[in-house]
Parts: sequence; structure tokens; C-alpha cells
Amino acid sequence: MYYDNLTLLTDLYEITMMQGYYESGSQETAVFDMFYRKNPCGGAYAVACGLQQVIEYIKGLHFEDKDIEYLRSTGFFRDDFLEYLKGFRFTGDIYAVPEGTVVFPMEPLVKVVAPIMQAQLVETAILTIINHQSLIATKAARVVQEAGGGVMEFGLRRAQGPDAGIYGARAAVVAGCIGTSNVLAGQMFDIPVKGTHAHSWIMSFKTELEAFRTYARLYPDNCILLVDTYDTIGGIRHAIQVFQEMRDAGIESKFYGIRLDSGDLAYLTKKARKMLDEAGFPKAVISASSDLDEYLINSLQVQGAKITSWGVGTNLITSNDWPSFGGVYKLASIITPDGVEHPKIKKSENIVKVTNPGNKKILRLYDKEEHKIKADLITLAGENFSSEDDLTIFDPVSTWKKTFLPGGTYEIRELMIPVFRAGECVYESPKVMELQKYCAAEKETLWAESKRLINPQEVHVDLSDRLYDLKQALLHSVDTFKD
Amino acid sequence: MYYDNLTLLTDLYEITMMQGYYESGSQETAVFDMFYRKNPCGGAYAVACGLQQVIEYIKGLHFEDKDIEYLRSTGFFRDDFLEYLKGFRFTGDIYAVPEGTVVFPMEPLVKVVAPIMQAQLVETAILTIINHQSLIATKAARVVQEAGGGVMEFGLRRAQGPDAGIYGARAAVVAGCIGTSNVLAGQMFDIPVKGTHAHSWIMSFKTELEAFRTYARLYPDNCILLVDTYDTIGGIRHAIQVFQEMRDAGIESKFYGIRLDSGDLAYLTKKARKMLDEAGFPKAVISASSDLDEYLINSLQVQGAKITSWGVGTNLITSNDWPSFGGVYKLASIITPDGVEHPKIKKSENIVKVTNPGNKKILRLYDKEEHKIKADLITLAGENFSSEDDLTIFDPVSTWKKTFLPGGTYEIRELMIPVFRAGECVYESPKVMELQKYCAAEKETLWAESKRLINPQEVHVDLSDRLYDLKQALLHSVDTFKD
Repeated sequence: MYYDNLTLLTDLYEITMMQGYYESGSQETAVFDMFYRKNPCGGAYAVACGLQQVIEYIKGLHFEDKDIEYLRSTGFFRDDFLEYLKGFRFTGDIYAVPEGTVVFPMEPLVKVVAPIMQAQLVETAILTIINHQSLIATKAARVVQEAGGGVMEFGLRRAQGPDAGIYGARAAVVAGCIGTSNVLAGQMFDIPVKGTHAHSWIMSFKTELEAFRTYARLYPDNCILLVDTYDTIGGIRHAIQVFQEMRDAGIESKFYGIRLDSGDLAYLTKKARKMLDEAGFPKAVISASSDLDEYLINSLQVQGAKITSWGVGTNLITSNDWPSFGGVYKLASIITPDGVEHPKIKKSENIVKVTNPGNKKILRLYDKEEHKIKADLITLAGENFSSEDDLTIFDPVSTWKKTFLPGGTYEIRELMIPVFRAGECVYESPKVMELQKYCAAEKETLWAESKRLINPQEVHVDLSDRLYDLKQALLHSVDTFKD
Repeated sequence: MYYDNLTLLTDLYEITMMQGYYESGSQETAVFDMFYRKNPCGGAYAVACGLQQVIEYIKGLHFEDKDIEYLRSTGFFRDDFLEYLKGFRFTGDIYAVPEGTVVFPMEPLVKVVAPIMQAQLVETAILTIINHQSLIATKAARVVQEAGGGVMEFGLRRAQGPDAGIYGARAAVVAGCIGTSNVLAGQMFDIPVKGTHAHSWIMSFKTELEAFRTYARLYPDNCILLVDTYDTIGGIRHAIQVFQEMRDAGIESKFYGIRLDSGDLAYLTKKARKMLDEAGFPKAVISASSDLDEYLINSLQVQGAKITSWGVGTNLITSNDWPSFGGVYKLASIITPDGVEHPKIKKSENIVKVTNPGNKKILRLYDKEEHKIKADLITLAGENFSSEDDLTIFDPVSTWKKTFLPGGTYEIRELMIPVFRAGECVYESPKVMELQKYCAAEKETLWAESKRLINPQEVHVDLSDRLYDLKQALLHSVDTFKD
């Protein structure tokens, strides 16, 4: 029961609304923004991810005969509309922030400009994909940041289904993990696969020593021995014994060491480091993997644990403390067939739930000297700014909070790039390992104060004067309450 | 980039271990148990789910040429082993608890008895699948329990990737949701699909009233109007106006009402009920959907909210407060080619992490009169019990806690059923809607005290005398520490 096409991966209401637009003869173009409202895990940033799968989804969009027949069987749809679906293709434009980019709340990560039926249909799948992968990329970035590198993604068995494991592994590697245990992800995305053996390997031999010796004989150059099946200190002694036997036999392993999957990792890794060093194996790796997350890794670092390699599973692959990115897809504008744009706003009692109207773009303002992010500015698509001009930006809620940027002291970058134009894909995704490099550079554009785990400094995301004024005008318009 | 086969959906170490067993000429049969240690969400039960996808996975197990070439490219594998993989098939036995069954910690949900190479390979995918689907089924059971029915699964956009949405929807329906918004899940599993329209539908019309009228004209018999886009009370008035217009036009809708997606649901649904009743629409449905979970639903019920239909999204599809089931797959026995069984134990400093050794089965003991669960008893596979005999069971940690069951007052049911025998599938999964009925009956076998949200009564899972004695003997054996 596999699927080779995600066209029906949508909420039913997207298709009932499509039929509604179809039946009412709508010729309107819609602008939808996909954005999120709150940074995951109490952080001050997120890492955008998932665009590659969105591109494949959009390219593959079409209703097969069996899909049409299934829709007919639900009783919701009329023959003329079902007939129309047979020829359905995506013909619109999509703009998006590249994968691996550091992003902030309220910024459109994906913008769809398309006939309203098309723009409506793709809502659900875009959200599913971008929400998931951006969540895991963000979590992985936090974990890698605290580990300082050497993080392996080991979470497949705890992922929320196969896709969560596969695309989660990809997102984790984009955000800086050096590899994954997931072989299928390795094959699909050409990313490094990692791993050694499990407790069951040790248990299937009569003795731990025999299990270690057999493993060392088979994998002399990838010889990480799991030492905590029975008694951890005894396991470390056995590992040292086997490393010594290898050395005595003239085998100089390229990569060897131990793995700890339980117990007090601070105490045990310091003890293991001392035992390994004293036995003449200072190059032996110490790998740890036991319910790790960014907070536990930070604590182990502070305690001086001697860990060179981190296997992170459940807490990364599910983003355990924050399992939903919470991205939404909101109508920003309707363009009528006469070419006139009608910006739309969704009001809410909760100010952060009020949407930003209009067809927009994101400008990132960098400090020219440090090349770190001063602020992001959401503007209308047609606005022009020059980094030679002085600029005063202000917080869109607490408008008295202003920042003055003198001309010449900052740089401007437009974040969203065209991905589809008139239904044609105009963007080629870089390979995952290139995205990893890009993401590493992106993280460097954050100030340290915005990366710390506790109470990080939020990055300003402001609105241009014109966008702010438009939003206020629509918010204060009483029309929408009176209709 | 879709995959049509999950054979490589495994951790690399499963395949490196396989090669190890292959190179050492292992002819052993292994018994592995998949079980979990702690009930999700602070509850006292879980709902087993995912077996159907496991069956498809096992049936489809084979390495294609491209898989062999990929494995070769990693540099970990030797030609003879890769050649062996070409003919690899699963030839073992699998036993499992049927989907929809109420289960408890430490009970094997899946038991694999197979040549060790095969039993090792399938670890990861079995865990990924059963962990995910059992988690969501358990969460859904809790949500449905508090709602008392009428729950629709609306979480696709917040699911951790497409599979999480698809198989999560299936698990939710098994556990009692009446339908899903996920069209692909509806198609794949023949489950009811549900939904109406979004805020964007309302916003794309000049007025809310025009949006409502258009929808009512198109879907007179599934006419649930979303009333909170601008001003909720005004929206309810507009909905009533449209219902009245339909009635005036002689249209008697089969299914109509309103949906609320924000605001104070207790206040607003009571107000809406009063307005609808006073306007002569007592049959109008009130559907609510706003970050619901079992706790918020419970609170709304206590407050007397008037909700007939519940759309539950993020918190169900991700099991937001408990996003990992935490199931593990542990070696329980090795059967040598001479047919002798060697039970295995994994020790741990933490008593609940010590495994139960040996080839086992689960007996469920029901109170004969009430047909509710008295206790579960994990026994060795070869043990026989008769419900005519008196039985004393005891807690496996606090062994002084004993329960006496007089013969004739209880019934015995063996929970695990054969699913594969010698590689052949001997079990046909019921349809999802049949599983839903079965699961509903299963939930009836729990005492109310084990279902409450706060501090529920744990259900006894005890070990037979023989299994307990075997475990103690292995635990106290010093051999494994000395090797």
C-alpha cells in the first residue's frame, strides 16, 4: 500500500472549496503565504527545510483515473468538476526561502501565486512537508550547536512513521548532523550512513569478549564497541583488551573506540577516557547515545564529559519537546482578472494571529562589518530599498521601538527566490551536503545572543512603512464586520 | 523521490550485524520481542496499531540490484555477503497482538522468531511502524474517550511528514475517530473523509454572507459554515440567516450547522446553541476545532460547552504531549541448531529496563462476570493454564503484592496471534472500520478507573512463576559479568 503521488494528500475541504470556486466560475489569482508564528523549542530562530519535497510534489500534481473515481465515490463532487480535475496541473508561481536558511516568525517561507483553485489545493501538502522538515532541521541545529559537531542522527526507530524517519534524517543532515543511521535516507539523498552494533550483537555471543573480537575482526576500520551491555567498566576493559590484541597483531585501525548507551555519561566518559589514554589509546573515540537532546548535551559539556561523537535519536527525530512547527498557510491577496490586487487580512482577537496582507517579500538586513543579521524587513513585493539610504525600522506591535540604520552600514538580501514560474520549475535544489554547508554559513549570521538555549535574544522582524500602513488600514476597516 | 519498498528502511548497524552473523556462519534462530515500557500521556493503557503495515513490509522484503549497489558503495560490505543479500527473504515466524487491542507495558506487541540475520534486519522498521501507529491510536483513544464520540481527525498539515499524516489518520480511525480530513488516507484505507471550508473561502468573497450563501447552494446537505473569520457572533447570525433562506426556499438540509475554530469555545458554543435553537434550528450541528486535546475536551465538557462534533488536529496527529511511544525490540532467546533454547536477558541498573527472557506469550485474564481485565500474565510459550484452576498472581517487582483468582471466576485469552509462519503470511488484516469496532469492544474491557485522565489505576502485568524464576536465575547469574 504505497503511494507514488501525493495529489490526494490534502484535506477534503481543499477539494470541496476548489469545486466551489469552479462552480462559481472564479477567475481569480490568489496569493497565499506559508509562515509560522513561534520559534520551536523556545529558541530565537528556525531553519527552513522541505523545499525539495515540495518541488517534487508540485511537479507530480495530477489526478489519476483512480483518484477521480475515488473522489466520485465520496458523493461530494459533480461530474463537470471531476472532468475538470482530469486536466488539472499547477500553472502558478511559487517563491520560497532556500532550504537551510535561518528564518524567523511571520516570514513567508513559501509564497504561492496561482489561480485560486490551485493555490487552495496545495495548502495541506506544503504545510505537512515544510512544517515537518523545518521542525526537525531547527531541532537538529540546536543539538549540533550544543555538541559543537560530531552529531549522528540515530532516531529512525522512534520517528513518526517511515517518511518522518527518512525526511527527518535529511533535515537533520542539512542542519549539521554528520550522518544518519537510516540506510534508505542515505541511499535517497546521498548522505553519510553511520553505525556499529546493538546490545543484541553482544548478547548473541557467549561472552562480551567474543562479541568484541568478532566485530573487531570484521570491521577493523570502523570498530566502535558498545561497552554497556552487562557491566560498563568491565566492558571498557574488554574493549581495551581487544584494541591491544589488534595492535599486537599489527592492525592499525583507522577508526575505533567505544560507545556508551546508558548510565551516567559524565562520570563514565571521563573514566573511559582515562582508561583508554592510560592503556595507550588516546585516539579511541568515545561515542555516547542515551536520550540526548540539546539540554543534556549542554549539561554534559559543562560537566567536562569526554565525548567525541554523539548519537541522537528520539528527541531529535520527533523534536520531542516541541513536536509541531505550527506553520500556517494564509490568504494574503486576491488578484482579480482585471489585474487589480485586493489585499486580504485575517483578523483575530490575538494580535500575533492577525495576518500580514498583500503580496510581500522579505529583505534581510546584515550588519556590513560583522555580516550578522540586524533585522528582517517584510515589505510589499513592489517596494525598493537601497542600502545606501538611511533606514528607520520599528517593531510592528510596539511601534515606539525603533532602530536607525545609517546608509552604508548595512547590506540587503532578498530571501525568497523564484521556484516555479507559470508552472515550470525554475530552481534546482543543491545536494544535501551543499545545503549543509550553506546552513552552517547561515547559522554564522546569527549573533551568539540569539543562539543561546536560555532566554535568547529575538531577532527583529519588522514591516515596511507601506505594509504597516496597509495592515492598519485593513484592520481598522469596519467593512469586514458589517458585510 | 518516492520509495516502493522499505527494505533499506533500517539502521546501518542492522546490516553490519547481519554481515557479522553471515561471516561467522551463524545458524542460530533468535526470538525478539517488541514491547514498550511506559504508557503514553500518563495513561494506564495503550492501543496496539501498525500490524497491517508491518505485514506489507515483511512481504515486500527483498534487496533490489540498486540496493545491493548502494550498499556496496558504502564500503562496509563484502562481495559474498552482498551476493547472499540478493536471495534474501524473510522465512521466519511472527506473532503479534491484533491492531486495536488494549495493551500494557512490557507485553510483546510483536514477537519475531527467525534466523538471527532476518530477525535483526527487521528490527528498525517494525519499531518505526508500531511505535508510530500505536502512539497515535493511543492518543486518539484518549481524545475519543473524553469527547464521547464525534471526533474527526484533522491533523494532516501538522503531521510529521506524509506517512505520519496517512498512517496517523488510519490509527486515529482504528481508535474511534469517525473520519479524517485526509483524502489520501480515505482512499487508501476506505475510511470516511470529512470537512467543509477554511477561512480563506470566506476571505475570497466580498462578504461573509456571500461566502456562506455560495457554500450552502453548493453543499446543501453538508453545510457546516465556519463562523469565526471576522466576528464570531456576527458569523453565527449570518449562518442562521442562510439556514433560514434555505428553509424558506424549501431546502431541508440533511446535515448543517456551524464550525468554530477560535475564541472561548465554552462561551461561544453555549451562545451559539441558544441562538440556533431560538431561531428554530435545534438540529444544527456545532463543530469545534481549536488546539483540542483530551484535557481541553474534558474541560469543555465540564463547562457544559455545546459541541456535537470535534475536529482534532495537531495534538492528536503528533501526540503533542508525548510524541514517542518508546517501544524497543530486545533479544529474548537464542535457539541453537540443535534445537536448544538459550534464554537471554539484558540487565540494567534500572529495574524496568531489565528484559523478560525466553520465548513468551501473553495471557489476558478477564473477570468472568464483568468481562473486564483482571490482569495480564506473561508466561513462557510452552506453559498451560486452565481457567478452572485457582491462580495466584503477583507483581514482578513488588512480589509481596499478590492477587488470588479462584478457578471458574476468570477467563483466559491468549493475546498474540500467528501472523507469519515460515515466511508465509497466515493472517488477513480486517478492514479499518472493523478494527474500529474491535477496538471499541477492547476499550470496554478496561475498568473506568484505568481510563480516567488523572492518576489512572494501572493494570497488573505479571509474570508466571516459571518466567519469574527464569528471570531471577539469569539476573543473579554472575557469568555474564565475568566472561
